[in-house]
Amino acid sequence: MTTPTAIRRLDAADPDFARHLDHLLSWESVSDDSVNQRVLDIIKAVRERGDAALVEFTQKFDGLQVASMADLILPRERLELALTRITPVQREALEKAADRVRSYHEKQKQDSWSYTEADGTVLGQKVTPLDRAGLYVPGGKASYPSSVLMNAIPAKVAGVTEVVMVVPTPRGEINELVLAAACIAGVDRVFTIGGAQAVAALAYGTESVPKVDKVVGPGNIYVATAKRHVFGQVGIDMIAGPSEILVVCDGQTDPDWIAMDLFSQAEHDEDAQAILVSPDAEFLDKVAASITRLLPTMERAAIVETSINGRGALIKVADMAQAIEVANRIAPEHLELSVADPEAWLPQIRHAGAIFMGRHTSEALGDYCAGPNHVLPTSGTARFSSPLGVYDFQKRSSIIYCSPQGASELGKTASVLARGESLSGHARSAEYRITDPDWKAGNTEDGK
Amino acid sequence: MTTPTAIRRLDAADPDFARHLDHLLSWESVSDDSVNQRVLDIIKAVRERGDAALVEFTQKFDGLQVASMADLILPRERLELALTRITPVQREALEKAADRVRSYHEKQKQDSWSYTEADGTVLGQKVTPLDRAGLYVPGGKASYPSSVLMNAIPAKVAGVTEVVMVVPTPRGEINELVLAAACIAGVDRVFTIGGAQAVAALAYGTESVPKVDKVVGPGNIYVATAKRHVFGQVGIDMIAGPSEILVVCDGQTDPDWIAMDLFSQAEHDEDAQAILVSPDAEFLDKVAASITRLLPTMERAAIVETSINGRGALIKVADMAQAIEVANRIAPEHLELSVADPEAWLPQIRHAGAIFMGRHTSEALGDYCAGPNHVLPTSGTARFSSPLGVYDFQKRSSIIYCSPQGASELGKTASVLARGESLSGHARSAEYRITDPDWKAGNTEDGK
Repeated sequence: MTTPTAIRRLDAADPDFARHLDHLLSWESVSDDSVNQRVLDIIKAVRERGDAALVEFTQKFDGLQVASMADLILPRERLELALTRITPVQREALEKAADRVRSYHEKQKQDSWSYTEADGTVLGQKVTPLDRAGLYVPGGKASYPSSVLMNAIPAKVAGVTEVVMVVPTPRGEINELVLAAACIAGVDRVFTIGGAQAVAALAYGTESVPKVDKVVGPGNIYVATAKRHVFGQVGIDMIAGPSEILVVCDGQTDPDWIAMDLFSQAEHDEDAQAILVSPDAEFLDKVAASITRLLPTMERAAIVETSINGRGALIKVADMAQAIEVANRIAPEHLELSVADPEAWLPQIRHAGAIFMGRHTSEALGDYCAGPNHVLPTSGTARFSSPLGVYDFQKRSSIIYCSPQGASELGKTASVLARGESLSGHARSAEYRITDPDWKAGNTEDGK
Repeated sequence: MTTPTAIRRLDAADPDFARHLDHLLSWESVSDDSVNQRVLDIIKAVRERGDAALVEFTQKFDGLQVASMADLILPRERLELALTRITPVQREALEKAADRVRSYHEKQKQDSWSYTEADGTVLGQKVTPLDRAGLYVPGGKASYPSSVLMNAIPAKVAGVTEVVMVVPTPRGEINELVLAAACIAGVDRVFTIGGAQAVAALAYGTESVPKVDKVVGPGNIYVATAKRHVFGQVGIDMIAGPSEILVVCDGQTDPDWIAMDLFSQAEHDEDAQAILVSPDAEFLDKVAASITRLLPTMERAAIVETSINGRGALIKVADMAQAIEVANRIAPEHLELSVADPEAWLPQIRHAGAIFMGRHTSEALGDYCAGPNHVLPTSGTARFSSPLGVYDFQKRSSIIYCSPQGASELGKTASVLARGESLSGHARSAEYRITDPDWKAGNTEDGK
């Protein structure tokens, strides 16, 4: 009945494996010139005409007949109403997830510190929250309540004074679960706007939308392009590529479980990437059979099939050590270590957004409620970036408080180095604080 | 003899003050289309032709007659030679500065953590260093040994395995202090290349230049534009605007000291910004007089004058509380609190890259040797970003290790939320791990 799955098979023993793997992973997201130009025009219009531009763009792009900006503001009461419109089971699940996400993120909070040196000089670092953060939530089908929790809770834990959410409601479609999640996560204000215009409003402010310090949250190509353009004016989180999972399995997990773990990634969209690595060739065959059998039972079978056949792969490796090598090469967003003793391999994992350890930890648990964030670095960027966290909503200021004696001593070093760089203003500013007149005279000539 | 300085005077009591201040601070760095296109062409050439492109561009842009890539590699021995070519006083100053920078940054190092829940589920965060970092150092006049220390030391403290430095040597000009600083900071490899081609080489790798995970360090508009374009392929640090200082003074510091502190910023370049805020109008006059008197004595008088008159300001405020308000509005890169009791005001400072406390702590001490980093957020970006630090060379992976019981419990919550988002693959993946068959049957129907 079922045709065998067409998922790609690779073998690390193949002399061309590295090239095949590079090809499999290759992904470049480029905003073409027309997208760039449209986004720049939208940003300009919002900067120049504020609310009026927002109302126009919302009429045009979201098909909403709104008379004024007042129709695009959801008061806190509307969020509370949403809580009563979802099922009690859903509300309980949202609250449980929020509690766990909050507990985990509390551990990420960083504190100010300082230390005093022998001569009385104090050095330190002051940690403060952002004043205001903007959270972009997509509308329509990709509007995920779990994303609201994952983006808003770290901001609130960091101590951000005001979290402003924007969410488009195309053709008036409101997602009650999203509003309920916003209520539970403590979002302060909500505007029903979206697209590049919403990002521009958050970055520059309008009569109604307050200017924020950082914009976070996922969005389509217009939203991503707008975020790139406003970067510098405000902070942004990462620009996410398609979601991916790498499952490393020793061959002892139920193949149906593994197939479904791969599907749970593949169902996101056609570009999502699901890869399984195992030293057990027979196991790879079993998972291929599970994929073939289970695929037709998926609600989103068409998306899953395109993703699995287009960007998925089953990779045979010589042993677990080689599996870990492949994992470090990929630096996956999600890494499942579906093996007997995951802790034995953990020290060797250098790059991954999140690591799901053991056969029972499916990625889906982390996506919703385990506690850690589900906003993770994609497309190999785990080599240099981290999950979204409380640290993204805190910033640091260096503290330097020199005692007169400390300033005098440090001034000598600063003077030599500044003159070495021909920055004599720097040198003279430091030399004013040197209390030892002999040194001063001697060295300013010397070092010049 | 001396014409009075033309520095701008503002008064916070002026009803138009906010607008004047906005105007004073306004700064937008835009890479024009021709710069963008040239940079994109250079990146393309380096990706396609590797070393050969680097050699060509270096011949063309740096006026160097090099035969092959081998001429653009400095072995570690060359760095050690540089140590012998600077004066002993300079070497001692570099070593002292490096030691202090290292000690301070050690305190920023973050460690992995985890905790175990009642049912045996383990959650945590694994912190790892980047594999390889690339450090851009400008050539010619803006080639600063202190920048080498400030960029390389945090990477080494973080545990980065390999720090690769690029520094152009236009017309063969080598800065021995820069090489000596690289030696002291522990830089592993040096290539004498620069410009967009050096950034492209670090981001994509060539036959000789290893591909890095993050590119840091200052540069001209071509370097900054190239960094923007390779962002995503590699991490980058901030894109710096012109340097700025805000001095808040109660009127009791020697006006010559304050004038020189302002100059030490202004001498960087014509676009640098130096602002003084004080509640004491007479003191502002005294500083203006010091500026007029001292300006002609400056080595870089022309640059200082353009900067001070073009972008500088003396701002009169009603009191210290208003001075702090202005400081938070500006979110300055460098904030000097040249007042009697700086600690009294510190809690109210929300945004600043680095805070220099008291009359003795001139910014220059922090630029060179106090310990904290001198790479700081400019142009008001201290509202959402931090000094360069060890944290920029570390990244985090979330750890989730569910016990069978934990996975079963979390699976219930995940199932409800996943079905609420119409992601049934996620739900089914979680449900496989639920060990309570009654719940499963009941709720997958319910929640659908």
